Amino acid sequence: MNFLSDLAIELDTKMVLIVMDGLGGLPHPDTGLTELETAHTPNLDAIARESACGLTIPIALGITPGSGPAHLALFGYGPVEFSIGRGALAATGAGIELGPDDVAARVNFCTVEAGRVVDRRAGRIATEVNARLCEKLNAMALPGGLTARIVPEKDYRAALVFSGPGLSDKLADTDPQRVGLEPLECRPLPGAGPEAASTAETVNEYVREAARVLADEQPANMILLRGFSKLPHLPRVTELYRMRATGIASYPMYRALARLVGMNVIEAADPFEEKVEALAGAWSDSDYFYVHHKPTDSSGEDGDFERKVKAIEEVDAGMPGVLALEPDVLVVTGDHSTPAIMKSHSWHPLPLVLRSRWERTDAVQSFGETACAAGALGIFPARDLMALMLANAGRLEKFGA
Amino acid sequence: MNFLSDLAIELDTKMVLIVMDGLGGLPHPDTGLTELETAHTPNLDAIARESACGLTIPIALGITPGSGPAHLALFGYGPVEFSIGRGALAATGAGIELGPDDVAARVNFCTVEAGRVVDRRAGRIATEVNARLCEKLNAMALPGGLTARIVPEKDYRAALVFSGPGLSDKLADTDPQRVGLEPLECRPLPGAGPEAASTAETVNEYVREAARVLADEQPANMILLRGFSKLPHLPRVTELYRMRATGIASYPMYRALARLVGMNVIEAADPFEEKVEALAGAWSDSDYFYVHHKPTDSSGEDGDFERKVKAIEEVDAGMPGVLALEPDVLVVTGDHSTPAIMKSHSWHPLPLVLRSRWERTDAVQSFGETACAAGALGIFPARDLMALMLANAGRLEKFGA
Repeated sequence: MNFLSDLAIELDTKMVLIVMDGLGGLPHPDTGLTELETAHTPNLDAIARESACGLTIPIALGITPGSGPAHLALFGYGPVEFSIGRGALAATGAGIELGPDDVAARVNFCTVEAGRVVDRRAGRIATEVNARLCEKLNAMALPGGLTARIVPEKDYRAALVFSGPGLSDKLADTDPQRVGLEPLECRPLPGAGPEAASTAETVNEYVREAARVLADEQPANMILLRGFSKLPHLPRVTELYRMRATGIASYPMYRALARLVGMNVIEAADPFEEKVEALAGAWSDSDYFYVHHKPTDSSGEDGDFERKVKAIEEVDAGMPGVLALEPDVLVVTGDHSTPAIMKSHSWHPLPLVLRSRWERTDAVQSFGETACAAGALGIFPARDLMALMLANAGRLEKFGA
Repeated sequence: MNFLSDLAIELDTKMVLIVMDGLGGLPHPDTGLTELETAHTPNLDAIARESACGLTIPIALGITPGSGPAHLALFGYGPVEFSIGRGALAATGAGIELGPDDVAARVNFCTVEAGRVVDRRAGRIATEVNARLCEKLNAMALPGGLTARIVPEKDYRAALVFSGPGLSDKLADTDPQRVGLEPLECRPLPGAGPEAASTAETVNEYVREAARVLADEQPANMILLRGFSKLPHLPRVTELYRMRATGIASYPMYRALARLVGMNVIEAADPFEEKVEALAGAWSDSDYFYVHHKPTDSSGEDGDFERKVKAIEEVDAGMPGVLALEPDVLVVTGDHSTPAIMKSHSWHPLPLVLRSRWERTDAVQSFGETACAAGALGIFPARDLMALMLANAGRLEKFGA
């Protein structure tokens, strides 16, 4: 990464990275075609014909990534070296600027009966209910100069941040992960220092008080915490690669990721055409644009093959608008695979197309998993994509004499 | 490796890895087809059509591996990080359980005339002669509380183990590697400590005494030693990957390798159908099965193209029996290449087929080197295979949030 940084130079060229979340798929049993291969994508196919194609490996062969590491890889960060905890990611996504000593956790509102969890998602309460409950909890006081702040995410999810001196994030989850069990006490992780023990006490005190405050609520009468984490130190892409960078996304998590690596962030609603509008609007302000499209992942997670196909076609329809901006480098890919037949993230490599005046073309005639496997770029680690984009944008100097 | 270990979970799924030793080949000058491409393999071709294919690199491009590192890579170990010395491998293969301080060496019985080696393999003496000579040598006594034990392998080969306090394996070979030269004195490797000097003295004393004991024998009147080594610490696959594992092999070396990484071991004779029977018999006892087939390598080493073709067809004939067990993940590949036209191991990547409900298929229509180069899995390091097998068996959790 410092290696790349030493070579990066400023230049007046534009790079666009379009990430269809969970793009990669597996064949439909009836047709033998993946979601992407099923979708009608005349624009992406045309781009593939005049570009270099390939497949990317998000983390390593066989490894199924979460959104955090998968995106860090696309931004050029070693995803194992720079790992962001779920709590820190959730808090940043919810708009909280974490201080270096703050500890964040992911919260589920849940339903407890006779001490045991009967619904880990509290009947998927509406976001407005979530917001009202967070307000109630934020009225509570913590002793010892500590403060806690809970902010709603979507539905039953929230982010909780503890601030104060001497906090540790070496803490085990309180979420038992299964119904029928009691919420767990927060405990220090094995080998953690004394700060972890006292932080665990603080957390447990907070949870007991929260249970009291929520006792009369239905169905959300308890909270479960997981992914305790501080923010890791992430060098900024703006400094690493000497570029201005903007992230465009509808979903808080992805705006958070962009902000964490030092990008400007623009919130743009789905559908995809609104993102293209935002891209056009910010065109003169940045050199590198990361555009995130969520529906490909959520439909995959739901096991809805057809909806994922439509979500891909929506991006295809937006491509003329992107091409009209004449980016020097255009990449369309995904962060990880979410095959509808698996209803979950998976380890499979991602199809990728890289359009630039300076890339080799190949025999790939359409944008799809099988076609891209035979592309000019081969199968390569996602974390190498940033170098490839910078190179095609003329932004990397020669290495060595 | 610890990274993978952190993600591994137990599950009731079955994985089979079939290793045709030295599978990879080079084209026959008359036909332009490799041994595998020449072989009639209707079963393997059918599997290739419905599976993901690729090529594996055992160690690194251009590196020709021995059996030890090539197998360690297939089991998920960094083959450079975890290297097993030839002596330790030979001793374990010959059935000796090495203690942590024991030093083992590979032995060649050889023929010496007027102090110079005239045949490094003593006319390839029969294994029974070898066994008788080992008995004679084991009657010798060593001073200083040290013991030495020599056990026959095949033909002119044996393994020699020194036991006692303060032994070092930082020793140079006594094998001059060429006829016409004298056997070398055993010397400490450059930079080795004082234990190496005293161990070298012990070795030289043993060799002098052995020369005296063997003086009247013909043609095996001397021994050459190489590959001095202790056993490295290898974490067990059972703990690393949270699975029960069984290795099935006829040849001692491969049973030794399986045992070294913590597998149960079953001895099953060639032909291949006996290995399939052993596999079926052990089916309920393990989650991961490593099945080793030697004749592809020995025929390649002998330069016998036709015999190697037959050895491959023998495995093909056994595939219906393997498929009948309905493994969740089936991989057929080799550990390294042994092209018959080279009569030796080589650096060429290995054809691989991975059959699983969860892999992408590709356009590969038959199991062969050229066809697999265009497979969905691309060309990848053999050490990543374990992750890929575990992922397809549903045995790896998601990495990161």
